[in-house]
Amino acid sequence: MPIVHVYMWSGVSREAKDKIIKGITKVFEELGIPGHAVEVVILEVPRENWGVGGEQASEKFKEERPP
Amino acid sequence: MPIVHVYMWSGVSREAKDKIIKGITKVFEELGIPGHAVEVVILEVPRENWGVGGEQASEKFKEERPP
Amino acid sequence: MPIVHVYMWSGVSREAKDKIIKGITKVFEELGIPGHAVEVVILEVPRENWGVGGEQASEKFKEERPP
Amino acid sequence: MPIVHVYMWSGVSREAKDKIIKGITKVFEELGIPGHAVEVVILEVPRENWGVGGEQASEKFKEERPP
Amino acid sequence: MPIVHVYMWSGVSREAKDKIIKGITKVFEELGIPGHAVEVVILEVPRENWGVGGEQASEKFKEERPP
Amino acid sequence: MPIVHVYMWSGVSREAKDKIIKGITKVFEELGIPGHAVEVVILEVPRENWGVGGEQASEKFKEERPP
Repeated sequence: MPIVHVYMWSGVSREAKDKIIKGITKVFEELGIPGHAVEVVILEVPRENWGVGGEQASEKFKEERPP
Repeated sequence: MPIVHVYMWSGVSREAKDKIIKGITKVFEELGIPGHAVEVVILEVPRENWGVGGEQASEKFKEERPP
Repeated sequence: MPIVHVYMWSGVSREAKDKIIKGITKVFEELGIPGHAVEVVILEVPRENWGVGGEQASEKFKEERPP
Repeated sequence: MPIVHVYMWSGVSREAKDKIIKGITKVFEELGIPGHAVEVVILEVPRENWGVGGEQASEKFKEERPP
Repeated sequence: MPIVHVYMWSGVSREAKDKIIKGITKVFEELGIPGHAVEVVILEVPRENWGVGGEQASEKFKEERPP
Repeated sequence: MPIVHVYMWSGVSREAKDKIIKGITKVFEELGIPGHAVEVVILEVPRENWGVGGEQASEKFKEERPP
């Protein structure tokens, strides 16, 4: 406890994943939860599977890049 | 708000994804929620990872095709 | 197949839930999927548990009402 | 994008929720993602619904308190 | 690893929860995964939030009882 | 009902998936729930997307193998 699921567009770099995992774990450590109890799972989803405002992110956010 | 996660078998066409995203967004718009607030995420799962009644869908639904 | 999880703020009316379930099921029926195969689960989450832009929705969207 | 789901034991204080939301949002901001695009949803689960090592957390972690 | 999320109708007894947690943990132990690594989270959802075939389970399965 | 989501590291064999699906379904059958109502979805996640104690499982559990 806790379990954290992160949904992002596919293509996140290994370094960014490491920062997300370390950063989120630290958020809970600062609340007094031991780090070893924090599990973070990053689920990468292709942009054409992600809709915002009724539009596929592959269209709407063509130019943006995942970290 | 809302966030919608859709779990389906892998192999959904780009057109079907677009219809799912547009259709679900519209369901919430008809309830008075602004479309831009609706986020839809489609998670495609291989059929051998999906069990119904204790059987892998890759066996049980061999003939069926995703939309 | 498919399974649909809908995350919303708590306080959705029974009628709105019914419309969400019926509406989402119809989206898939229009893609040729039999309605009986569609499962929709609505997860209601208190507004203070929901953050957008780093702020609790209980603060940020004090005035808005769920459908 | 991203969407973050946090599963925790029930009983998290309003202040801890605020820190979780702010802290996780900041992790993504530091990766160059605009804060307004980050959505964090905290799902509180009763301890008797949470199993670790085959045991209910209501038994196994009787003495521990959520933040 | 693994993390298991179980979605069920509200009203599951403490004993049934215990059996679910123990039973699922054992499934993984029999595959060689150490039990202490298995985390099971049961999410109970009111029947009116659960749709099958476009109908609320509170209507469709009025007579059925959770375990 | 129920719906079960299993999050594991990528690379689970077809046989292990079959055992997971059959085993979890049986857990619910033993509680009196008909097997055909049990849906199990296995979500495989690359090890570098999985953090425990602030570390990527691709580092921390380099030697371990999924079943």
